[in-house]
Amino acid sequence: MQWGAATVCAMASEPIALRDMGSFHVGGRTVQISGEPVRELVLSPGGMPLRFDPNGPHQVEAMYVQYFLPRHRKGKYPLLLWHGGGLTGVTYETTPDGRDGWLNMFVRKGWDIYVSDAVERGRSGFAPPSAWPDAPVFLPKQNPFERFRIGAGAGSWSADPAQMKVLPGNQFPVDAYDNFMKQVVPRWLSTDDAIIAAYRALLDKVGPSVVLCHSQGCGFAFRLAQARPEFFKALIAIEPAVAGDIDQAGRLSGVPTLIVYGDFIEGDARWPTMRQFGLDYAQAMRAAGGAVDVVNLPEIGIKGNSHMLMMDKNNAEIADFIQQWLSEKGLVVRQAQSTMPTANNASRSSPRKRLSR
Amino acid sequence: MQWGAATVCAMASEPIALRDMGSFHVGGRTVQISGEPVRELVLSPGGMPLRFDPNGPHQVEAMYVQYFLPRHRKGKYPLLLWHGGGLTGVTYETTPDGRDGWLNMFVRKGWDIYVSDAVERGRSGFAPPSAWPDAPVFLPKQNPFERFRIGAGAGSWSADPAQMKVLPGNQFPVDAYDNFMKQVVPRWLSTDDAIIAAYRALLDKVGPSVVLCHSQGCGFAFRLAQARPEFFKALIAIEPAVAGDIDQAGRLSGVPTLIVYGDFIEGDARWPTMRQFGLDYAQAMRAAGGAVDVVNLPEIGIKGNSHMLMMDKNNAEIADFIQQWLSEKGLVVRQAQSTMPTANNASRSSPRKRLSR
Repeated sequence: MQWGAATVCAMASEPIALRDMGSFHVGGRTVQISGEPVRELVLSPGGMPLRFDPNGPHQVEAMYVQYFLPRHRKGKYPLLLWHGGGLTGVTYETTPDGRDGWLNMFVRKGWDIYVSDAVERGRSGFAPPSAWPDAPVFLPKQNPFERFRIGAGAGSWSADPAQMKVLPGNQFPVDAYDNFMKQVVPRWLSTDDAIIAAYRALLDKVGPSVVLCHSQGCGFAFRLAQARPEFFKALIAIEPAVAGDIDQAGRLSGVPTLIVYGDFIEGDARWPTMRQFGLDYAQAMRAAGGAVDVVNLPEIGIKGNSHMLMMDKNNAEIADFIQQWLSEKGLVVRQAQSTMPTANNASRSSPRKRLSR
Repeated sequence: MQWGAATVCAMASEPIALRDMGSFHVGGRTVQISGEPVRELVLSPGGMPLRFDPNGPHQVEAMYVQYFLPRHRKGKYPLLLWHGGGLTGVTYETTPDGRDGWLNMFVRKGWDIYVSDAVERGRSGFAPPSAWPDAPVFLPKQNPFERFRIGAGAGSWSADPAQMKVLPGNQFPVDAYDNFMKQVVPRWLSTDDAIIAAYRALLDKVGPSVVLCHSQGCGFAFRLAQARPEFFKALIAIEPAVAGDIDQAGRLSGVPTLIVYGDFIEGDARWPTMRQFGLDYAQAMRAAGGAVDVVNLPEIGIKGNSHMLMMDKNNAEIADFIQQWLSEKGLVVRQAQSTMPTANNASRSSPRKRLSR
């Protein structure tokens, strides 16, 4: 694959025409809580007291999904956007400095988009303490800055912007870093199986898809692609923090895969090892006959990217690069399909009819 | 105000044309965490270990807001949708049984919509335990069913749908009740001031607006309307669980206000008292010269509504009723304004330019 001149189009002033948008939850299970005291609660100051019994069945571990279906569909399959650790689907929305994120960009490119909040993140909610054994992890402000290759490693963050040691040429919108930290949510470390079960339920509902994952989310994507390769029409792994089980990489031999890494990896304390997980997995895929492209963006002239590629100042250029790759894999139709729902095709063109399953 | 034949239009098959959509966070503060142990964490199974220091400044109490700006704007001001307790902005999205929610309906009616997740709910995230004194409340499955006038009070819920005692004629989509429970998130009882601060920041950012609130959310709306009536071009309170400070109700004398209640209130254990809070507040507004309409839907022939009016099977009819009221208050333009952003009006037509403030 060749990547020449940037084909970034300034389409942000054109309207977004959707044949539908909405949301749903998938998956989850019921847990029984018992032995907790009944209390009297006042839910709002000045409000009516409530005798509150917390015992009984609780709905937990469902996953929130929001979808945007463009009027003129060009992607052959749904495009699922899976976020990374400590984050939610907001990762793909407006960038911290107010530019279009990949959600808007790929809707404009004609993809049916499904953005999810993994179990325990964001609008998926979280379970009572008795359901999960551990407490959530809260990231202080300096943590992502120093770990996501925005700053120059440990000690690079400062409350005083003038004292921050930003990696030279970094594309992250550093002036809006505090807005990014408002997107960060607590995360549990015991919920991987629940998250995978929910993503599995999403694939069951939406059907064969292109999955674009980021960081922690790629661990779930690789594992699910191993289990159900027929659901993965393509897999785009943006800076995977982990890969799958290397002994099962051959299961992805029929899944066109693109793995993308940004800049500043060699100088980082942890990312050379983390990248190696992906490189080794890609090699095992190739050994089994798989088609996988590993792209280090600086090697094709796209420089300065942090771990948060989809928010970086050149995020549109990277989205175009991904779109070109998808097109080369035959996953983009040349003639847009106008797919307004009718009595006959509503179930194909929108998830609504499948909600009651 | 007269409410005659239903004017529900089946517009769901027409495309939604947006001049922009996106999200941002507003408000929040920084808290310092100290004295916590440094730990080694493995964030993903098989991943690179991380030496994790949780101490330092933490960003807390910001609020997530998602916006949808129709190409043809007909509402004279932004329409802010504020959800109730234990819920998120998902309240206004697709209903639990897969129909359009009020978000889509009011976007189609031409309103610039801002849907928020109150502080500590959904995509707003929540703070470390040391920042808030209490633990969150988790609602078991039977709680909303019996409290939101879906079932006939205490003991009406059952894990066996055939055994559920649903209020006769109830409009809530009971078959999808478990989907509704997937929308319910934990709530804290100590965060009211933080929530109000965040809504205040939202008003600062978006400017004078029409605020549509539900249940707990109306407690915040009434209090903010008292503090800053100039920001409230109208207030629509859907089943307020509490009202404001009755001694300050006169502050709303210039705010056109609509208070809406559903069905089954007389037979409920708590709702007659809760409705009385609103009736008393409305009376105090009127005594100060305010214009407030209190509508008990059954009295105008709209029957069977639960506390979750915006999800009930007749939600479109109630949205039309609200739209007619807004129109009578002069808040809907007759000729839709096509407001695609240009170099000159981008800051007026989208919140993007104001993000960096």
